[in-house]
Amino acid sequence: MPYQPGKPMEELERELGITDVVKLASNENPLGLSPLARAAIDKAAPELARYPDANGFYLKQKLSGLLGCGSDQITLGNGSNEVLEILFRTFVGAEDEVIFDAHAFIVYQLLTQSCGATAVKTPAKEWGHDLEAMLNAISKRTKLICIANPNNPTGTFLTADELEAFMARVPQRVLVVLDEAYYEYLTPEQRPPSLQWLADYPNLCVSRTFSKAYGLAGLRVGYLVASAAMTDLLNRVREPFNNNALALAAAEAVLDDHDYLARGIELNRREMARMEAYFTDRGIPYIPSVANFITIEVGQAAALYEALLKKGVIVRPIAGYGMPSHLRVSIGLEFENSRFMQALDDVMR
Amino acid sequence: MPYQPGKPMEELERELGITDVVKLASNENPLGLSPLARAAIDKAAPELARYPDANGFYLKQKLSGLLGCGSDQITLGNGSNEVLEILFRTFVGAEDEVIFDAHAFIVYQLLTQSCGATAVKTPAKEWGHDLEAMLNAISKRTKLICIANPNNPTGTFLTADELEAFMARVPQRVLVVLDEAYYEYLTPEQRPPSLQWLADYPNLCVSRTFSKAYGLAGLRVGYLVASAAMTDLLNRVREPFNNNALALAAAEAVLDDHDYLARGIELNRREMARMEAYFTDRGIPYIPSVANFITIEVGQAAALYEALLKKGVIVRPIAGYGMPSHLRVSIGLEFENSRFMQALDDVMR
Repeated sequence: MPYQPGKPMEELERELGITDVVKLASNENPLGLSPLARAAIDKAAPELARYPDANGFYLKQKLSGLLGCGSDQITLGNGSNEVLEILFRTFVGAEDEVIFDAHAFIVYQLLTQSCGATAVKTPAKEWGHDLEAMLNAISKRTKLICIANPNNPTGTFLTADELEAFMARVPQRVLVVLDEAYYEYLTPEQRPPSLQWLADYPNLCVSRTFSKAYGLAGLRVGYLVASAAMTDLLNRVREPFNNNALALAAAEAVLDDHDYLARGIELNRREMARMEAYFTDRGIPYIPSVANFITIEVGQAAALYEALLKKGVIVRPIAGYGMPSHLRVSIGLEFENSRFMQALDDVMR
Repeated sequence: MPYQPGKPMEELERELGITDVVKLASNENPLGLSPLARAAIDKAAPELARYPDANGFYLKQKLSGLLGCGSDQITLGNGSNEVLEILFRTFVGAEDEVIFDAHAFIVYQLLTQSCGATAVKTPAKEWGHDLEAMLNAISKRTKLICIANPNNPTGTFLTADELEAFMARVPQRVLVVLDEAYYEYLTPEQRPPSLQWLADYPNLCVSRTFSKAYGLAGLRVGYLVASAAMTDLLNRVREPFNNNALALAAAEAVLDDHDYLARGIELNRREMARMEAYFTDRGIPYIPSVANFITIEVGQAAALYEALLKKGVIVRPIAGYGMPSHLRVSIGLEFENSRFMQALDDVMR
């Protein structure tokens, strides 16, 4: 089964013959493109007949300074999807087992299948990862444990203390990837100092993305931070020129756009509170979320999804994540969220 | 051994403390970005916080019309490099053999290694592919034959008659990929009707790129045309969102820029003739080329490459292609080629 992306807005607009579709389906940054990223694209465009920098020298150098790690610890990819794929292809073979949560990011499942490896899914605890169950699931064949923190599509997260205690108990021969695609939405106090753990745990790696809080989903830039030794292996598998020139330029620029990042996080915090209040008021159960989306329990989710589509609102069905009674709703702009709430009221009436 | 790209201009300018480096090392289109592609980038930029179309619907539709094949026969990739990688990963296993020419595009070698398969290199005939030798190299273990036409880095090509006779003799269980990255530089009479052969040969596929004549090397767009059945398999291996939104938009637009394409091909024809005349005049042997580069035999190529660098001219050493006595020179703008000729005169004096 290939990955099922959120329904494109143009497609629904074509189907309904309308032009004001609201898409809250792919956890995108509702602020649109950062002005600094836009300027960087303009600056880089005239050189597009040239090949990009095959190694992303400047972006890695900048990330290195911000993250406090070496450039030789960073692997760049075409979205964090690609860095995860490179990780799997480098280390996971047909005889291996990969452990992840029953409701974790579906790409872990797809990559495990494509390596011919065996998926070992551990049941969730209150929709979050059960680290004890994950430890108990480790066998002689376990090669990799994937942990999404915060998790998509549940919005749950694990604390620094929980993760550190977990890492101390994972055998060094087992790799652990912390997928921190939604890291920036955590409050500073919530954020695990995961990169600092790399020095103690050579079997740990951390992936992040520019697709969410940094608003560059359309440009596909993600990265993995790991030991220099692991990074060297990953870069041998990575294709040259896997990030294009505009992606590299925009990602480098958006790292300077502190205002854009802060506005997006603040908007998300404010609108998340409004959505929670709405769900509470209507008696709709939701999973408390630290990310830029919220997952609600609605019973006949597929039918509700279709009914919302007819109202011009796209949310995300997550039956493929083992959650056929839930819908995932991205936090959008104020008017987008209001449109969603109005549409949900209409169809639930 | 990872892929060795051409030396970046900025790197050499930093090293030499100059700002007018000429790069004739990566077979890029010297005209720069197409104005239509530039306009498409501007139009698409505001939507970059959204994920790209995961399936490249519009670009495939447009290509389908131009090429006379179904959209379901096209696999898009992050450069033709990625479509070749998808092809290898889908079909080539550790027990398989892959046949290619001793001086063919080095990515075939790298991909064969990364699949753990066995490379079977056939010796060239006058620097071109020896199809008879390739047929003779087919064994029970042969899975794939890679043919670059025109070939990089030799600039040689195979005629339609030669290729058709070859295909008729390849067993159907053996896949053949025709890598036509430099196809547009062939004269209309030279161009093999390779896509028409797909109907007769389900084991054939054809890759092309936007990185050369279409001038989008920085954006990374390539594609593979094959049977719908083969394409379905390839698209299960392909990552979603492997082409970013600006790459898709620019590639779609540049297909309409007939003027840009024609100007680039005409410039290449004219300047190729001037380069050939220069080499003939100086008694420097060259391999006649139908592409946008020319490969010369210079003896101590590594030393000459370094000497040209000191003059601010970057060309491509190709020892990695089994050609330690040759240098590959891309055809640039008139003043760039003149700079190269002057520099070569200087260092050979």
